[in-house]
Amino acid sequence: MPEPGPGEVLVQVGAAGACHSDLHLMHEFDAGALPWGPPFTLGHENAGWVHTLGAGVRGLEPGQPVAVVGAWGCGTCQRCLDGLETYCDRPDLAPVPGGGGGLGLDGGMAEFLLVPAARHLVPLPDGLDPLGAAPLTDAGLTPYHAVRRSQAKLGPTSTAVVIGIGGLGHLCVQVLKATTAATVIAVDPRGSARDLALACGADLALPPGADLVDQVREASHGRGADVVLDMVGSDDTLAAGAACVRQLGDLTIVGLGGGTLPVSFFGIAYEASVQTTYWGNRRELVEVLDLGARGLLRSESTLYTLADAAQAYRDLAHGTVSGRAVVVPSDRYAG
Amino acid sequence: MPEPGPGEVLVQVGAAGACHSDLHLMHEFDAGALPWGPPFTLGHENAGWVHTLGAGVRGLEPGQPVAVVGAWGCGTCQRCLDGLETYCDRPDLAPVPGGGGGLGLDGGMAEFLLVPAARHLVPLPDGLDPLGAAPLTDAGLTPYHAVRRSQAKLGPTSTAVVIGIGGLGHLCVQVLKATTAATVIAVDPRGSARDLALACGADLALPPGADLVDQVREASHGRGADVVLDMVGSDDTLAAGAACVRQLGDLTIVGLGGGTLPVSFFGIAYEASVQTTYWGNRRELVEVLDLGARGLLRSESTLYTLADAAQAYRDLAHGTVSGRAVVVPSDRYAG
Amino acid sequence: MPEPGPGEVLVQVGAAGACHSDLHLMHEFDAGALPWGPPFTLGHENAGWVHTLGAGVRGLEPGQPVAVVGAWGCGTCQRCLDGLETYCDRPDLAPVPGGGGGLGLDGGMAEFLLVPAARHLVPLPDGLDPLGAAPLTDAGLTPYHAVRRSQAKLGPTSTAVVIGIGGLGHLCVQVLKATTAATVIAVDPRGSARDLALACGADLALPPGADLVDQVREASHGRGADVVLDMVGSDDTLAAGAACVRQLGDLTIVGLGGGTLPVSFFGIAYEASVQTTYWGNRRELVEVLDLGARGLLRSESTLYTLADAAQAYRDLAHGTVSGRAVVVPSDRYAG
Amino acid sequence: MPEPGPGEVLVQVGAAGACHSDLHLMHEFDAGALPWGPPFTLGHENAGWVHTLGAGVRGLEPGQPVAVVGAWGCGTCQRCLDGLETYCDRPDLAPVPGGGGGLGLDGGMAEFLLVPAARHLVPLPDGLDPLGAAPLTDAGLTPYHAVRRSQAKLGPTSTAVVIGIGGLGHLCVQVLKATTAATVIAVDPRGSARDLALACGADLALPPGADLVDQVREASHGRGADVVLDMVGSDDTLAAGAACVRQLGDLTIVGLGGGTLPVSFFGIAYEASVQTTYWGNRRELVEVLDLGARGLLRSESTLYTLADAAQAYRDLAHGTVSGRAVVVPSDRYAG
Repeated sequence: MPEPGPGEVLVQVGAAGACHSDLHLMHEFDAGALPWGPPFTLGHENAGWVHTLGAGVRGLEPGQPVAVVGAWGCGTCQRCLDGLETYCDRPDLAPVPGGGGGLGLDGGMAEFLLVPAARHLVPLPDGLDPLGAAPLTDAGLTPYHAVRRSQAKLGPTSTAVVIGIGGLGHLCVQVLKATTAATVIAVDPRGSARDLALACGADLALPPGADLVDQVREASHGRGADVVLDMVGSDDTLAAGAACVRQLGDLTIVGLGGGTLPVSFFGIAYEASVQTTYWGNRRELVEVLDLGARGLLRSESTLYTLADAAQAYRDLAHGTVSGRAVVVPSDRYAG
Repeated sequence: MPEPGPGEVLVQVGAAGACHSDLHLMHEFDAGALPWGPPFTLGHENAGWVHTLGAGVRGLEPGQPVAVVGAWGCGTCQRCLDGLETYCDRPDLAPVPGGGGGLGLDGGMAEFLLVPAARHLVPLPDGLDPLGAAPLTDAGLTPYHAVRRSQAKLGPTSTAVVIGIGGLGHLCVQVLKATTAATVIAVDPRGSARDLALACGADLALPPGADLVDQVREASHGRGADVVLDMVGSDDTLAAGAACVRQLGDLTIVGLGGGTLPVSFFGIAYEASVQTTYWGNRRELVEVLDLGARGLLRSESTLYTLADAAQAYRDLAHGTVSGRAVVVPSDRYAG
Repeated sequence: MPEPGPGEVLVQVGAAGACHSDLHLMHEFDAGALPWGPPFTLGHENAGWVHTLGAGVRGLEPGQPVAVVGAWGCGTCQRCLDGLETYCDRPDLAPVPGGGGGLGLDGGMAEFLLVPAARHLVPLPDGLDPLGAAPLTDAGLTPYHAVRRSQAKLGPTSTAVVIGIGGLGHLCVQVLKATTAATVIAVDPRGSARDLALACGADLALPPGADLVDQVREASHGRGADVVLDMVGSDDTLAAGAACVRQLGDLTIVGLGGGTLPVSFFGIAYEASVQTTYWGNRRELVEVLDLGARGLLRSESTLYTLADAAQAYRDLAHGTVSGRAVVVPSDRYAG
Repeated sequence: MPEPGPGEVLVQVGAAGACHSDLHLMHEFDAGALPWGPPFTLGHENAGWVHTLGAGVRGLEPGQPVAVVGAWGCGTCQRCLDGLETYCDRPDLAPVPGGGGGLGLDGGMAEFLLVPAARHLVPLPDGLDPLGAAPLTDAGLTPYHAVRRSQAKLGPTSTAVVIGIGGLGHLCVQVLKATTAATVIAVDPRGSARDLALACGADLALPPGADLVDQVREASHGRGADVVLDMVGSDDTLAAGAACVRQLGDLTIVGLGGGTLPVSFFGIAYEASVQTTYWGNRRELVEVLDLGARGLLRSESTLYTLADAAQAYRDLAHGTVSGRAVVVPSDRYAG
């Protein structure tokens, strides 16, 4: 059990989400593609209760329920001062370059999590406990960031396409429905995932395939998608997204599926923007938790004990988890 | 000499720019890649004087100097009603799909140009004549549109990189200097082009090469480019642009160099947007002409008579034109 | 029955809303405060069916259901070309300065309405008929415009206050709920109006009074309102709005209640913006009708025959109309 | 000489600007209008060198030249986390409510200034020393913030009007010229101030008076001002600004002249926004200092020794200071 130093906070973990990207991580380690490697505890999607405050920490109290902002930047570069720690300009000065707890440093698949600065903690609003909050810190925050950056393109006559209705995708649909009046089309090969999308408010749920572009076009009065959010990121989904996206639209790559999209002048609609996006920031997490507390955003979760964490990842790898896999280290949630 | 029908306007051409994209056009014809083919008169960068008004045209007078907005959409879809005729949603209803005068229809390399609707004409402000205005309608308007769409990323501490300092590039540098306080870096292998860039106000002019990324990074305090505007669009320039662009930056493909950029999650800075951009709209041309009339935007031009138009394209193909090649059909500019 | 000239369209009126501003109009006529006076037919909130097309009109067909964009500008100034005919820069060149059908020219309280340009007509989307559409063209469009201009201030943790839940106010609440995730507080002294607000989705409905500021502050976690939309516009409501609005918020005056707000440096929260707003534009009406067709925006209406139009205004003056008073000239809606 | 506590920094003052608002302050004290009163040292526009670091401060070194961000918020509310400490939501938790050094706490008219948190210090970029930087921290930052919030309304065909060409006004003109291509009109009754405005790049300099509105209208092609920045804030200047501002424009009150503007529906152009604005934030100061270091923003300053500080305020009260009055406590600038 770590002792928090000056400015640090020790959090008792209430819930820690298991993320598809963790599977990618394990694979990337082998390839040497990451700036850090094992050993460290996984779990970058965390919420719990403040346990011990390091010297000089103000504004938090032991026992207070909190969610953890996962991307830990240097805290002093302009991006960090702007609240964009995901895009820290000085990763060399951060606790770990481009990561955080569960990404290069010990994460939340444990009873306690050491958080290096109080600014990474957001008090939970009334109506949300750590179990409900944890999946929102990544599976909710990541699509929230992706949606909000495209806000100007998401008016009432717009069409948004969400590809991949898993942990992130089903929350993405909810974010779109809660914050815009766009028409939402979900795409997933699994019938159960499409049912989940419809239950989350999607206006239409389609399987991928040769007809997809025509179907999106028909549902959008011939215009195509204003915004495509690709939660998978494989060659196939990227190509499908690029074929669906409209002139001046957005194609945002969220999933770490390892795909590549060849972009050329006449290969994609004029001025459609292609970009990756990575997680989200504290400001946005405050808003995500607010949506969660008000019942506008709810993660469909499957719970695992800490002892069963490895099983959570196996189920995730097999695609058999409904919604988000969440590991619950705390006794408080024991049955 | 055509007779303007209802709503149409016949323009006496004062000047018509010869554009690199015309060379691409001629090449694409062979490949059958375009929705239209010869014969039609080239010249999509036009200004002149109103000659004859078709029935029902109001607000213009014969003799009035005007610039021609080049992209002619259907005029009734939502994009056209929004003033975005470059991105017309119903090209099947436009005079020609995705084009205009000089692009599928007869253009300005002639004494007269038939313009299908009065809305495509912008009266010239005091201080600008057709000779000064013509190159601004494409070589000025295209980079202007590209710069303005990235306006939010071009604050005083930002860095913009312009790749290719030809007809469009040297105006792009001027647009950046006139409308933002960003630091501007020009990139071109030709010493004369780099000199032109510096004369246009660039803060730095660099040749392409292995050092480019490091040099851009150093000039931007280690951050990389906030906005890259690629006026060339070859494989090499796109790769260089992608290597320079910063997290959350923009990489905008303007040039028709036929290149392809493979975009993947870890292959480009996080959330850097990649997009093509095509020409500009009437609203923006009004602003470009205003800059021109106030001396803030001036095309370096080499003049050719109408009889020498073919030579203009040959010089363009050989890269020996300084600034923009402009064909002058009118006697008014005869020496 | 007027004959449409070139470019004009004769519309058979299906429904015409009776607006509080008409009552103001009648009063202003006496004061000579308006640029035009009687006689003209009232009714600036109109929908119906295309009846006869003037020469040269394309893209519309007789019998087609349409809504009328009410603000008729000159059509050639930059604001009009930008689609902002409400803010036409050359009202002296418009059909009537600062008005349209029912505002200086004959309006929709008649069987037929002469519309001076096809661009003022928006085809109705499937699922919406003239009766449902008419009130949306002003009572829906005006709050829609007011809400959308404040879009950036209406995130999930934001609070919007709507003062006055009548014809416009009850649609304003619906627009906020459909297009944002902000918390919506409705304010009206009438219990029935507060009930209507809650039925429209308001999170809270309060009477005006000494406690209002404290209640808004409490409901917004001590911060105050991010956006106040005052549908009344009296001295009292403006003062209440100014007291509620937060630093960096918006206080938008929609209602023609004749009030004045004294603005001084320490008299209102820092950088809270105060502005009037007037109606909306074609682009926005397309979106409003889309919301209407999808069931996300529905006017609570009380119907009157054309013969009873005068009674509609009397009821409006007495505040006894539930939702919007709509006059139905067409036999098609006769019982 | 104060001893910096944990997280605090002691700054040796290089230069401290004397501000018109200090004169207002002294007057407001009498009226009891402020949340704090004397005694405290004036001087809220400060730059100097880091002298001593409190425990735990990282990223700064003794001797390093720095500018001081003047508005000191609580540092933990959402506004502060967003970098908007001027608009702190919890002033009760700040070092002093709504102020900072020189505003309720001891300021820079002294040899040393105690700064309560390292985040309030911005390292000076190469090319700028404390003497050049100090006036930029308020007289530069305040108009910079006011201009940037109106950025979207400041395209090349726009017109900006700056009322009052003193310490802030002459920098406002420079900010507009450096960051936009708008036409800039300066207004001041003093010929010397108008000359200064022209030297700073204003396109036109006018005295106030009955003709002002017509002159602004003529210079803006009949449209009026897109943005009015009132550095005075008296009844007269506010009325003049409101008469000049165009539909959809901005009228921003910067000066503490104590005036009031009555806002009513037909008393100001449609949807023209009226707002105060208060100082600026760290992010913006970084940009202001960057402009300063690159020679794009330069305060015209009149220097006073610390012993003559009282004289600086007397001169300011008499309107005889050219540009900004700056007090220089440090020996380093002694002749």
